[in-house]
Amino acid sequence: MRYGMVIVALMVGMTAAMVSLLSAQSSSSKEVPLSKATQGCISCHQDLHPGIVSAWGRSRHARITPEEAMKVQGLGLKVSSKKIPDRFLKVAVGCVECHTQRPEAHTGTFEHAGYDVHTAVSPNDCSTCHAEEADQFSRNLMAHARGNLVDNPLYMDLARTIEGEVARKGYLLDFTPADPLTQAESCLHCHGTKLEVKGSQERDTLFGWMVFPVIAGWPNQGVGRENTDGSLGSCGACHNRHQFSIEMARQPYTCKKCHIGPDVPAYKVYSASRHGNMFSTHGKQWNFKSVPWTVGEDFTAPTCASCHVSLLADSSGDKIVPRTHQITDRLPWRAFGLIYAHPQPISPDTSIIRNADDLPLPTNLDGTFADEYLIDAETMAERTENMQTVCRSCHGSAWVNGFWERFERTIQTTNQATLEATRVMIDIWDNGYAVNHLAGGSLFDEAIERRWSDVWLFYANHIRLASAMAGGGDYGVFADGRYHITKAIMELNEWLRHKAAQSARECEE
Amino acid sequence: MRYGMVIVALMVGMTAAMVSLLSAQSSSSKEVPLSKATQGCISCHQDLHPGIVSAWGRSRHARITPEEAMKVQGLGLKVSSKKIPDRFLKVAVGCVECHTQRPEAHTGTFEHAGYDVHTAVSPNDCSTCHAEEADQFSRNLMAHARGNLVDNPLYMDLARTIEGEVARKGYLLDFTPADPLTQAESCLHCHGTKLEVKGSQERDTLFGWMVFPVIAGWPNQGVGRENTDGSLGSCGACHNRHQFSIEMARQPYTCKKCHIGPDVPAYKVYSASRHGNMFSTHGKQWNFKSVPWTVGEDFTAPTCASCHVSLLADSSGDKIVPRTHQITDRLPWRAFGLIYAHPQPISPDTSIIRNADDLPLPTNLDGTFADEYLIDAETMAERTENMQTVCRSCHGSAWVNGFWERFERTIQTTNQATLEATRVMIDIWDNGYAVNHLAGGSLFDEAIERRWSDVWLFYANHIRLASAMAGGGDYGVFADGRYHITKAIMELNEWLRHKAAQSARECEE
Amino acid sequence: MRYGMVIVALMVGMTAAMVSLLSAQSSSSKEVPLSKATQGCISCHQDLHPGIVSAWGRSRHARITPEEAMKVQGLGLKVSSKKIPDRFLKVAVGCVECHTQRPEAHTGTFEHAGYDVHTAVSPNDCSTCHAEEADQFSRNLMAHARGNLVDNPLYMDLARTIEGEVARKGYLLDFTPADPLTQAESCLHCHGTKLEVKGSQERDTLFGWMVFPVIAGWPNQGVGRENTDGSLGSCGACHNRHQFSIEMARQPYTCKKCHIGPDVPAYKVYSASRHGNMFSTHGKQWNFKSVPWTVGEDFTAPTCASCHVSLLADSSGDKIVPRTHQITDRLPWRAFGLIYAHPQPISPDTSIIRNADDLPLPTNLDGTFADEYLIDAETMAERTENMQTVCRSCHGSAWVNGFWERFERTIQTTNQATLEATRVMIDIWDNGYAVNHLAGGSLFDEAIERRWSDVWLFYANHIRLASAMAGGGDYGVFADGRYHITKAIMELNEWLRHKAAQSARECEE
Repeated sequence: MRYGMVIVALMVGMTAAMVSLLSAQSSSSKEVPLSKATQGCISCHQDLHPGIVSAWGRSRHARITPEEAMKVQGLGLKVSSKKIPDRFLKVAVGCVECHTQRPEAHTGTFEHAGYDVHTAVSPNDCSTCHAEEADQFSRNLMAHARGNLVDNPLYMDLARTIEGEVARKGYLLDFTPADPLTQAESCLHCHGTKLEVKGSQERDTLFGWMVFPVIAGWPNQGVGRENTDGSLGSCGACHNRHQFSIEMARQPYTCKKCHIGPDVPAYKVYSASRHGNMFSTHGKQWNFKSVPWTVGEDFTAPTCASCHVSLLADSSGDKIVPRTHQITDRLPWRAFGLIYAHPQPISPDTSIIRNADDLPLPTNLDGTFADEYLIDAETMAERTENMQTVCRSCHGSAWVNGFWERFERTIQTTNQATLEATRVMIDIWDNGYAVNHLAGGSLFDEAIERRWSDVWLFYANHIRLASAMAGGGDYGVFADGRYHITKAIMELNEWLRHKAAQSARECEE
Repeated sequence: MRYGMVIVALMVGMTAAMVSLLSAQSSSSKEVPLSKATQGCISCHQDLHPGIVSAWGRSRHARITPEEAMKVQGLGLKVSSKKIPDRFLKVAVGCVECHTQRPEAHTGTFEHAGYDVHTAVSPNDCSTCHAEEADQFSRNLMAHARGNLVDNPLYMDLARTIEGEVARKGYLLDFTPADPLTQAESCLHCHGTKLEVKGSQERDTLFGWMVFPVIAGWPNQGVGRENTDGSLGSCGACHNRHQFSIEMARQPYTCKKCHIGPDVPAYKVYSASRHGNMFSTHGKQWNFKSVPWTVGEDFTAPTCASCHVSLLADSSGDKIVPRTHQITDRLPWRAFGLIYAHPQPISPDTSIIRNADDLPLPTNLDGTFADEYLIDAETMAERTENMQTVCRSCHGSAWVNGFWERFERTIQTTNQATLEATRVMIDIWDNGYAVNHLAGGSLFDEAIERRWSDVWLFYANHIRLASAMAGGGDYGVFADGRYHITKAIMELNEWLRHKAAQSARECEE
Repeated sequence: MRYGMVIVALMVGMTAAMVSLLSAQSSSSKEVPLSKATQGCISCHQDLHPGIVSAWGRSRHARITPEEAMKVQGLGLKVSSKKIPDRFLKVAVGCVECHTQRPEAHTGTFEHAGYDVHTAVSPNDCSTCHAEEADQFSRNLMAHARGNLVDNPLYMDLARTIEGEVARKGYLLDFTPADPLTQAESCLHCHGTKLEVKGSQERDTLFGWMVFPVIAGWPNQGVGRENTDGSLGSCGACHNRHQFSIEMARQPYTCKKCHIGPDVPAYKVYSASRHGNMFSTHGKQWNFKSVPWTVGEDFTAPTCASCHVSLLADSSGDKIVPRTHQITDRLPWRAFGLIYAHPQPISPDTSIIRNADDLPLPTNLDGTFADEYLIDAETMAERTENMQTVCRSCHGSAWVNGFWERFERTIQTTNQATLEATRVMIDIWDNGYAVNHLAGGSLFDEAIERRWSDVWLFYANHIRLASAMAGGGDYGVFADGRYHITKAIMELNEWLRHKAAQSARECEE
């Protein structure tokens, strides 16, 4: 009965589908055939969720077949897979082409209108056409963003004191780890949830009752999502479904979604930088679609993607730097304070790291590095050269060298300031004025400990990102920067002085 | 004498006026006649304030007569009044059409160049053509934004400690309520001033000496302004004078004017959300003028207006949701912390609310609701369905349900965190470490009380708005979110522990 | 040998250079000749740094000769110099035209490919064509931004405690003045470094080994940079190299680079104001190139430049206000808190100022002004009139007067709040709870002193800028505004009370 309804809908809906798709495709010279199955999807979903279908209609996936896309010669080739199964070659990359791939691999696969469908498309699905990018991304720290958090007991202890439920226990605070719904909306919103099938549900739809899987952790577009096929990551984190537009991935707003808060204020720093100023003023005239992306012709100032990801070329069409989806390829330093800036980790899985105190941290509390887990000087030099090659597209060597010298100095000075703050904190712990892990407590659940984490989690990161992206300025000084890091150290020191004086008075009494 | 000058100016000015208007109207196929009186206004004011006249020249008001506008059939009709006085029908909606309406109703009416003019146009003036929108808006919380503040003694006590003049009184602080000029620039800037005629003034103008009324509270475009005709609100708060462009009202920048600070960080959360990312990248290609507003065709991600106000249609031209200027129509919860999130109030006049302790608050200090003043479960369900209908334009039911379940959980957890903070604060008051209203003090004028208000006024709101608009992420965690709400509770608790320990020591002595 | 390479490169590169320049110049009707020397520069640097050459190719400098530019009649004239040396007249303003000017004046001049080149072009170089603007700018506070900081021992003491290296010394903190690399990335990033030749360096380039000067302080685009010819300032601070686009200088993003942090939140306030809302929504349709800049035609709401810098005209082509590069021309008040808002200084060199206590501050600690260094009431009135003339382009007199009355009141109330905070701080110093300059300490290196500086450096400035640019609203109240200034005073007062009580207890014992 309900299938009868679907078939009627299919017939009625088809014309509308083709009309609207044609209009969406107006910029394309010839029509791209849809698989019959995709036509079926569209006929219903266009009315149910017009926004999804329309967004896809604007995508390159709707406008070119893989066979045509593979014919592109040279640096403009976007489909990196050498061989693509025949059934995909001559049709647009539509609904079923992605959502019914490898049904046996996905625990979330369910029967829907005669097809074995899964909701969340994974990097392994995308790799059918984009093998190289999926492979690079698997080595990206971001693909491991979920495990690097949830498999690190120290970070999860910090998370517990941030997103957990708080209750007083006498005069102390007691934090219960957050429930899954809260986690999904807090840290895991960006780091990625684990998609797990938790049974099924029958729902009354416009086309009658239908059965759907219940997937815990859904919805989520976190960059390190664990998918129903066990793969890691979500390409949609940056290549927003269902338009998957390269213009979007190349604009800084995409990165802003996760890199805006005081812990990683990348977007804020960029938008106040000279590069950001040029993007804001002239960006609307730039070409964000062109592959390769030609410096000076397509754009005159970098966005996040230009420096960290994109394949760049000069106006002769020669490659300046290759595309990479392993962001660390151009990054010698991990500027992010854990607790100190440090050389990038060797493995994208950072949960394996242990420092000298056997804590899962890439640095020791005294600021020295957990060397065996971090890249060596030679690798750092290579990556520095990769990044500076991008810089030199628009800047002379004296400029680049001067800039870089300051950046390295800032790594040192912010680590030094963090060390001073940590020394005060260690004195506080050692004197029993706060309770650390060695005394059976947490490093993060008392007010003075939170003031300490401000130092490395917020202020040092602001200073370093302002250095790295803007060459300094307001975000490095007054906007959660140097003004605030020294203020926090003053407060930590005053707190310790006060406790020590009080303690001395009590002893006298 | 001075009138002679006006007449000369009228004659000289006319040609320039027509030329410039013609150019501004270039997109219109036929010329729209101006009333003779409006021509007179323009002839002088075009030279005095070219920006105003030019902005109006770009408006729809300048490009179509009400008679033509009323002929629009179906969802595209913008003029909701069924009958409009004849004198307005066949001319553009120009200066005098608005500024001389209902002169007897406005205390601010004054004689000017032969006309009875009033400066501040009110919703009741606009209702001549836009009756339905004015009626909806009168039931909008925002229309009552002024009274909901100034008629609530508790809120005004908070305002006194924020914007009032501070002086030390011994070791205590004494706050004097702010003077009217300061109020107009602080809370009332957004909430709306009261426009009151305070006499008149003669000024030397380019056209000789003229008499103008002196209106206290002017200028102001606050959404809850009390007008010289006694009506509430300013349509210009969102529909910016004198272009009154629907594109502006539909873009998030309009809402940003009042919804950007840490108390209501709606714009910040939106701009860092996936929806905001799509708007930032693709918005410049969207159609912000089309009525109805077609999902997927005119735009591919929502702005504030899409979800909260606009009439949306699908690509078949069918209505998805009707237009509403009563924003709460699609809102079950009032996420704004007063002190806890709570169901929307029944009446837009919230100054009538009293909680169990007879305080003018929609919740009790223990987090329970002042139920009789708030909408019931059934109404909440209706409004939830209204909003989810918008969501489903682009998202499947599993997505929408998963999203909403998290949002409801966040309402609970943020209310729970606020309750813990409030329990600490109550202990502080009960022990006499701070002075509350029961002890003859204010809830808001001591440092520790201000730390408590941070919890519900800033942090809880960040977490809820991040949940509601972005599904979580940085603004819910690190940007004045969960990291900060737990930190504040830690500090409140430490403060209490310190005071209690000190008190115990003093007793011993 | 290496010169042979250059010559070959010159010949090979030339065609590419001309082609790409032609395409960049497509909007120009006729070809503009390049000097032979500039052709030489481009032939190599186009491949080395395609971004620079391309940006220049988009500039007006590449598209018109000075001779043609000087022919413009009336307000549209951009070249203010009455006489320009013949050798510049008939060629585009290319590489050598700027970088080889006045070689003897620049200590950084070096021989490069046969030319005497200097890296950093100075306002004195630009004044060859833009004499009037360079002259105005030399009287601008900004040109003196470096000296006004580094020659003021009190400000440098504040800088030391912000950007200096911190170490504990017993229970006290010891701040070492920052090293030059850190300074260049902190305060001097915006204020400007001093460019000093520190020797030379041979580098292996694509064209063989070459010798370059080593210039300390490079790179830097700070507005008060001290150049290798001794002149002050960098035109490129606002007129971004190498496109030097007037569109950029007129958009608020340019100012944002230095005016975004909590000390000078000008961009944040603007972007949340009604003017900013109009810019964000409609700005993409405005004409940012037109000179003069016509109110209502070219734009319908002001940007930073409209109010503070630009030559504005009405639609009859009549001048409303002249262009000025001395920003204070339209500013009676210096809203920036040092420690109080005060009338603008008479001299742009503020390092000469001494207050009644012989401190290099424009105000005394009690809020009164160091009058002899500040402009008088008459000059303030003139500048007020200059600014209000801009306002009246779009606003009636009642509006402007009402707005201004509130602004003046806000100057008073924020100065009054700062005075209360300062009185508490003075009590703290006088009682020896903190160590000030009179007691051999610093005003800025203790936690409670930093809380005091929050008051005038951050919060008072937010309130005043919100008043000046937005007429109030969220940034004046909740976003580091009145809520925060009163909170800080509460905390200062509580801290003093606590110390006094403790002190009293200790005396009793």
